[in-house]
Amino acid sequence: MIHKVNAYAALEQGGELTPFSYDMSPPVGDEVIMEVKYCGICHTDTSMINNEWGVSQYPLVAGHEVIGRVLEVGEHVKRLKTGEWVGLGFHSGYDLSCPHCLSGDHNLSPSAEGTIMGRHGGFADKVKAREAAIRQLPEGMDYQSVGPLFCAGVTVFNPLLQYDTKPTDRVAVIGIGGLGHLALQFYSAWGCDVTAFTSPGPKQEEALQLGADHTLNSRDPEEISKVASQFDLVVSTVGAPLDWNQIVTTLKPKGRLHLLGVLTKPLDLDLQTIMTRQLEISSSLVGSPSTIDKMIEFACRHDIKPQIEIFSFEQINKAIARMESGEARYRVVLEH
Amino acid sequence: MIHKVNAYAALEQGGELTPFSYDMSPPVGDEVIMEVKYCGICHTDTSMINNEWGVSQYPLVAGHEVIGRVLEVGEHVKRLKTGEWVGLGFHSGYDLSCPHCLSGDHNLSPSAEGTIMGRHGGFADKVKAREAAIRQLPEGMDYQSVGPLFCAGVTVFNPLLQYDTKPTDRVAVIGIGGLGHLALQFYSAWGCDVTAFTSPGPKQEEALQLGADHTLNSRDPEEISKVASQFDLVVSTVGAPLDWNQIVTTLKPKGRLHLLGVLTKPLDLDLQTIMTRQLEISSSLVGSPSTIDKMIEFACRHDIKPQIEIFSFEQINKAIARMESGEARYRVVLEH
Repeated sequence: MIHKVNAYAALEQGGELTPFSYDMSPPVGDEVIMEVKYCGICHTDTSMINNEWGVSQYPLVAGHEVIGRVLEVGEHVKRLKTGEWVGLGFHSGYDLSCPHCLSGDHNLSPSAEGTIMGRHGGFADKVKAREAAIRQLPEGMDYQSVGPLFCAGVTVFNPLLQYDTKPTDRVAVIGIGGLGHLALQFYSAWGCDVTAFTSPGPKQEEALQLGADHTLNSRDPEEISKVASQFDLVVSTVGAPLDWNQIVTTLKPKGRLHLLGVLTKPLDLDLQTIMTRQLEISSSLVGSPSTIDKMIEFACRHDIKPQIEIFSFEQINKAIARMESGEARYRVVLEH
Repeated sequence: MIHKVNAYAALEQGGELTPFSYDMSPPVGDEVIMEVKYCGICHTDTSMINNEWGVSQYPLVAGHEVIGRVLEVGEHVKRLKTGEWVGLGFHSGYDLSCPHCLSGDHNLSPSAEGTIMGRHGGFADKVKAREAAIRQLPEGMDYQSVGPLFCAGVTVFNPLLQYDTKPTDRVAVIGIGGLGHLALQFYSAWGCDVTAFTSPGPKQEEALQLGADHTLNSRDPEEISKVASQFDLVVSTVGAPLDWNQIVTTLKPKGRLHLLGVLTKPLDLDLQTIMTRQLEISSSLVGSPSTIDKMIEFACRHDIKPQIEIFSFEQINKAIARMESGEARYRVVLEH
């Protein structure tokens, strides 16, 4: 059966989202159609709407933090059953047979399919994806708030697994927003000592409530100098350039600066501190399906939840404006 | 007994080395006096002579790739015996009780003592150091050529252990000189596929003889573009700035760019490729005593030797000029 999909699309670069319908063919092979209940809004959605990476095609249906139920499955789908609650993130399919997929690094495969790249995403009542990219949610999970874990959540969770972070480690998070507020919860539950670098004011108190053990003013070089050589891992979620050469002095020998915020300016890093302390500078993008599963189980075990503001799908432009204001606490989710 | 040490010292910043004698008190505690037979010359020696890091004190006796015999030991020395062949590298002592030493990362301890920093090094007939920094050499090793392993050698060997390089990895070495010619030998013996980035001409043939499986012109962007996404590890030994944003495109997802050449210009790295491929940028300085021991055993097992040019200590200024010319094949060693 052909499904009629009711979506919200940008019809041109930077355009407001407007109702947009399209026909979705029935799932074949390992394809799955999800009935969308909730969808988080991520900065990447607006980057795609604005064609910031030059790969956008219009009409463009964004939305890649999708929560809903399985509506229909292709003939090769084995794991997913109609009606069960599932989530879909940044990637909608993997080839499963390239060296990266075979090593468990599906998200790093050049052939990984983006949920909102060259196809229509989750700002809609239905979305189609391939089975391996759609992950089951435990019974009774708080489905309304879980969407942001599928992009923001796995982005901050992934480095813990990739770099074998130890619960004995001291970790800092720079920037307490959509990503950072999840990082504080995950790293605290991981057993680490957690410091939040954030602006002075209410966010510092909120950071402590989210699991930070300490806070400091990310704009104050003097405060930063007081935590010299303190951290095993510093995770930055900010998109603005910081004084990275000061930031790396807060790392212990063998420490790591992991950059998750998209930066348009070059890093301008001096090698000297990196060399004498044997530091590592790294970055990553979301995580693999296996990492998503581990994150979901860990989040349930430790009651880790995105703090969200809910909007109806009809209010989608207002919801996007709220996300872009930077004022949301902390992630914006659309609801049908 | 007070020893009279006959050394070669720079009496002022950038000065020529001149004969210089000083009195050395007998070893106490874990101190050991070595009788120097050979000493390699490293760029760091001239950096110290020229006070490039602002920490030099004059008269300055450089030399930190020291090979010789144990002459006299302090009362707490347990492992080393008078007369045995030993080597001494960049560090001359460790506190052994700080968190870094207790974790095996002696070389990363802020309290690690530099062989030529605030004390006199191996451009002399005797040098004093602490027992843990002096490593035993197997009987019958080629003592004349082994000196450069103690700084250049461990510098290129260290990343193999630090980052768990696999023999299945594909590795590239940028710059085939004092460090690079040892990197090719080590990485080839490690079982890796090894590519040498070097200038066209005789060095490419020499690189193949040293263990490279492939060579390419490090100054030709088109040749570099042909090895896109090829390497697990790229080790740069060059001190000149390269197009790092192109270099990182030669890395596979999860690959590492490890920088061993001292760079005075900031790195100017764009984050995009690093993020989408989950790359790591890192650097390090020499290695721990345990790493030196493993390197020495591995070098003996695989017949890895520095290629050296020998000068007498009396010719020290000529020897330094030869090292600085960049023409030496590949490392310069002084001999008594």
